[in-house]
Amino acid sequence: MPGRTARRRVVRITLPDAGRAAGSEARADFLASEEPLGIRVDGTALTMTMRTPGDDVELAAGFLVSEAVVRSSADIAGIKLCDGTSCGHADHDGMGNIADVTLAPGIAVAEGARRNFMTTSACGVCGKASIEDICVLPQAGVAADAARFAPSVLAGLPDRLRDAQRVFSRTGGLHAAGLFSGDGELIALREDVGRHNAVDKVVGWALLNDRLPLAGCVLLVSGRASFELAQKAVLAGIPLLAAVSAPSSLAAELAEEAGLTLIGFLRGPSMNVYAGAHRLLD
Amino acid sequence: MPGRTARRRVVRITLPDAGRAAGSEARADFLASEEPLGIRVDGTALTMTMRTPGDDVELAAGFLVSEAVVRSSADIAGIKLCDGTSCGHADHDGMGNIADVTLAPGIAVAEGARRNFMTTSACGVCGKASIEDICVLPQAGVAADAARFAPSVLAGLPDRLRDAQRVFSRTGGLHAAGLFSGDGELIALREDVGRHNAVDKVVGWALLNDRLPLAGCVLLVSGRASFELAQKAVLAGIPLLAAVSAPSSLAAELAEEAGLTLIGFLRGPSMNVYAGAHRLLD
Repeated sequence: MPGRTARRRVVRITLPDAGRAAGSEARADFLASEEPLGIRVDGTALTMTMRTPGDDVELAAGFLVSEAVVRSSADIAGIKLCDGTSCGHADHDGMGNIADVTLAPGIAVAEGARRNFMTTSACGVCGKASIEDICVLPQAGVAADAARFAPSVLAGLPDRLRDAQRVFSRTGGLHAAGLFSGDGELIALREDVGRHNAVDKVVGWALLNDRLPLAGCVLLVSGRASFELAQKAVLAGIPLLAAVSAPSSLAAELAEEAGLTLIGFLRGPSMNVYAGAHRLLD
Repeated sequence: MPGRTARRRVVRITLPDAGRAAGSEARADFLASEEPLGIRVDGTALTMTMRTPGDDVELAAGFLVSEAVVRSSADIAGIKLCDGTSCGHADHDGMGNIADVTLAPGIAVAEGARRNFMTTSACGVCGKASIEDICVLPQAGVAADAARFAPSVLAGLPDRLRDAQRVFSRTGGLHAAGLFSGDGELIALREDVGRHNAVDKVVGWALLNDRLPLAGCVLLVSGRASFELAQKAVLAGIPLLAAVSAPSSLAAELAEEAGLTLIGFLRGPSMNVYAGAHRLLD
């Protein structure tokens, strides 16, 4: 299996600046690995994602939570990563780019559970899709989560996330998703070239460890908060999603409807609360 | 049609800091709009993307370039945005979330042109997919582009991009893709919550204005450079892709194979060249 980083030759060019001479220097650099992972469910290809190799079983499990296919580890009979020895092609050794999921009896990928809203729930002519149409929220949502959070604890989380990111400092190219307890303890951290994959890996870890729903927890993402990430948080039962950067309009709308607390621009001593401000202690 | 930004009420919380008192203040904030856009080709749903509304015709056109479905404006008979009046549902007025593309006679979406590599070109058992398998590069690539670029010009582009980003300063939530001439003039700028969409909008603009292939041009993206973005640059005939942040391993590999010059960490007076360094002037 490829590693999380790939060593590569790079030419670093420096322009003349403040009395320093221009220069060009060849050296080795580490890049975040990006490889395709196919997720197959009961023998049928479900999706392909470009991800950073590692935690692929968790990624597949978390993806299925995000698609509302599974809700507990009992819903999954097994996940097998192809180790490249079963296809019989000598040169495919060690690729591991397919995750083969077998669902438990009675669990299936319902057509309606796929977010292919164009052919299912939206108006087929103009494409109008309300939030209810395009997202797959569970019936018991996070709205009822009575957890409360201290802003002073939240303000410290980005530093904890960065400290814990072993790979980030080396490549500068990986997004992080960190799961924290309400009092700020780091529970799980996953990284990926794709933010959605990093979140799926965290959620998959929780599923496989029978920790769903993640009541009382905080999910912190290193970048922006999109609709997709807000949906993943809600489906995992996480009551608070925080992002270092901005949320999108649809992320804020979904958060409000679902009862998710959404925080953006969590930087230094301040933060913006876009939905669910009632969960923040004075 | 929804705008590029959405006004939203936000609670800004500030912790006590350096003698300043803690505070909590409700105010209006502008978020980057995110809405689904369905792209339909000759009556069949092809894809759905979460995008920032605006330049949707360009987005659809650029997406089709990136999928190697079309190569010139002559390949497209027309692109119609649903204006919400044709579906007959009174409450769907003005959504505009479907782009209906009609291809020219003789042009079609070949199954092999879709990047659904799991069911097409990759090994069906272990999922091994080489770069040639998962990408859809044109036969005449960018490798032959004889353009040369001055590092001093490239170093000035991020500032030009930021200056030109009217929306960014307001929301902090939009990615930008800027197309520049070899001497640093901004040709086109597009923004989106998704980097890939911003690039597709630029490429679609070029297609619709009969400027493909974009020989001698520079594409600058505000974030990281993924495999997908490198592929889009190559398909549009752009010889140099620059990113403010890091590229992924697969972006660098693709760039090397395709003859694309790939620059990362284009910040201040320095830059890293991951492939195609021969195009940079001393």
